[in-house]
Amino acid sequence: MNISSPLDRVRIILSHTSHPGNIGAAARAMKTMGLSSLYLINPKAFPDKEADVRAVSARDILEKIRVCTALDEALDNTVLTAAMTARPRDLSHDVFNARQGARELLRYARQHPVALLFGTETSGLTTAEVSKCQMIIHIPANPEFTSLNLASAVQVMAYELRMALIENDEPVPLAGFPANFNELELLYAHLEQVMIASDFLDPQKPRLLMQRIRRLFGRARLEKEEVQILRGILTALGKRW
Amino acid sequence: MNISSPLDRVRIILSHTSHPGNIGAAARAMKTMGLSSLYLINPKAFPDKEADVRAVSARDILEKIRVCTALDEALDNTVLTAAMTARPRDLSHDVFNARQGARELLRYARQHPVALLFGTETSGLTTAEVSKCQMIIHIPANPEFTSLNLASAVQVMAYELRMALIENDEPVPLAGFPANFNELELLYAHLEQVMIASDFLDPQKPRLLMQRIRRLFGRARLEKEEVQILRGILTALGKRW
Repeated sequence: MNISSPLDRVRIILSHTSHPGNIGAAARAMKTMGLSSLYLINPKAFPDKEADVRAVSARDILEKIRVCTALDEALDNTVLTAAMTARPRDLSHDVFNARQGARELLRYARQHPVALLFGTETSGLTTAEVSKCQMIIHIPANPEFTSLNLASAVQVMAYELRMALIENDEPVPLAGFPANFNELELLYAHLEQVMIASDFLDPQKPRLLMQRIRRLFGRARLEKEEVQILRGILTALGKRW
Repeated sequence: MNISSPLDRVRIILSHTSHPGNIGAAARAMKTMGLSSLYLINPKAFPDKEADVRAVSARDILEKIRVCTALDEALDNTVLTAAMTARPRDLSHDVFNARQGARELLRYARQHPVALLFGTETSGLTTAEVSKCQMIIHIPANPEFTSLNLASAVQVMAYELRMALIENDEPVPLAGFPANFNELELLYAHLEQVMIASDFLDPQKPRLLMQRIRRLFGRARLEKEEVQILRGILTALGKRW
C-alpha cells in the first residue's frame, strides 16, 4: 500500500534501551498497528539476535531503524513530541492519558511529523529528556504496580494511535440479515400454539410467558435464517400433537 | 487493597499456549492493569523458568494460576465469555472491537464472573472453542500484519478493561440475573436431545445446527429464569416422544 497514512508520520523513539529483545518486540507491536518509523538513542545492544527473534515478521522495521547518539537528532523536524512517563514531574507539562494523547498526536500527524519518546526499562526518561517534549502521556495503570514492559507500552500507544485513526467510522457491523416484524410475529404465534398444544401454556392463565419469550428473542435480534430454524424445530416437535 | 473490583471477576484464559514466556508476560500485563485471575488450558510448559523471568514482579499471579485440562472447566460459573480472534469466521457471532468488547464484558463483571479466551500463538482458537463463547472481540490492527504477540493482546485488552472501569459514563445496568455456563450447556444438551428425538436433527449429519443455536442464544445472553422457561417448554414438548 503506497497511500501515505498519518501513522507513517509518528516516530517511536526508544532512549537508552537495555534489552534488545524489547526493541524487537516494540517493532512487532508497531507493525501490528501500522506504524513503521523507529528511532533508537544509544541502545545498549543493537543490532542483536534477540531483537531479530522478538521482531518475528517485523524485521523490515528493524532494517529501517535510525540509531542516533542524541535526542535532538531523533527529534529533527518534528512538530510535537510526547514523553511517556508513569511518574508525576516537579515541573509538569499537561498530562494526557494514552487515549487523549494519541488523539492529540494524531491531529498533528495528519500533516506533520510527531514523536513518542520512551525512556529506559528501569528508570524511564530523564528530566532533561522530558524538557524537550511538549506534552506528557501516561498510560492509566494499577497504582500498586505501574511497571509496564517497554514493548507493552509501545503496543498500547500504537493501538491507541490506530484507534484514533479509525474512530468515527466503526460501528459494530451486523453479522447476518435480520428478521422482520412479520416473520417474528409468525414465530411467536407458532411457538404459542405449540406450547398450548403441549399443555405448557394454559391459555386461560397465560401469565407473562409470551412477554418473557418476546423479551428473550427481542434481545437476540433474530436473523431471518434463525427464525426459519426455530420454526423448523417447532414444526418437527409439533407434528405429533 | 481488599475492596473487590470488577476486574477481579474477569478471567484471562490462555488455551494451549506454546511459549511459557508468553504466560509470564501475560501475567505482568494483567497486573499492570489490576487484573489477577489467570487460567491455562493444557499449556505446553508450565511451571517454567521462562514464565517466572517474564512475569518479573507479577509472580503472585503465576502462583494463583489455575491449570485446567478442558475449556469447560475454565468457564465454570462464568456468565459471559469473549473469544479473542483476528480471523473472520464462517458462521460468525457479533464482532466487537477491543474497546466495545471491554465495555460489554465489564457491564457483566460488575456482578458476575466473565472470561476472555485467547488461543494459541500460531493458530488461535478452534471453532469448537469459539462456539462456547457468546461474543467475539478483535483488536483492530494493520490489515497487512495482524499478528499481535499473545501477551501484547492480553495487554491491550487489560488496558481497555481498566479504561472501561475508569470511564465516567454510567454503564447500562443488567435487567436480570444471567444464566451461567453450566446452565447453558444443560440447555443445549436438552435441546439437542429433543431435536434428535423428533427427527429434526440427524446426529449423522448435524451440519451446523447446534452452532447456529449456540450463536443465537449466545447473542440473547439468556437469564437464569429464561433457561428454566425454555427447558420447561422442551420438557413439555419432549414428554410424548
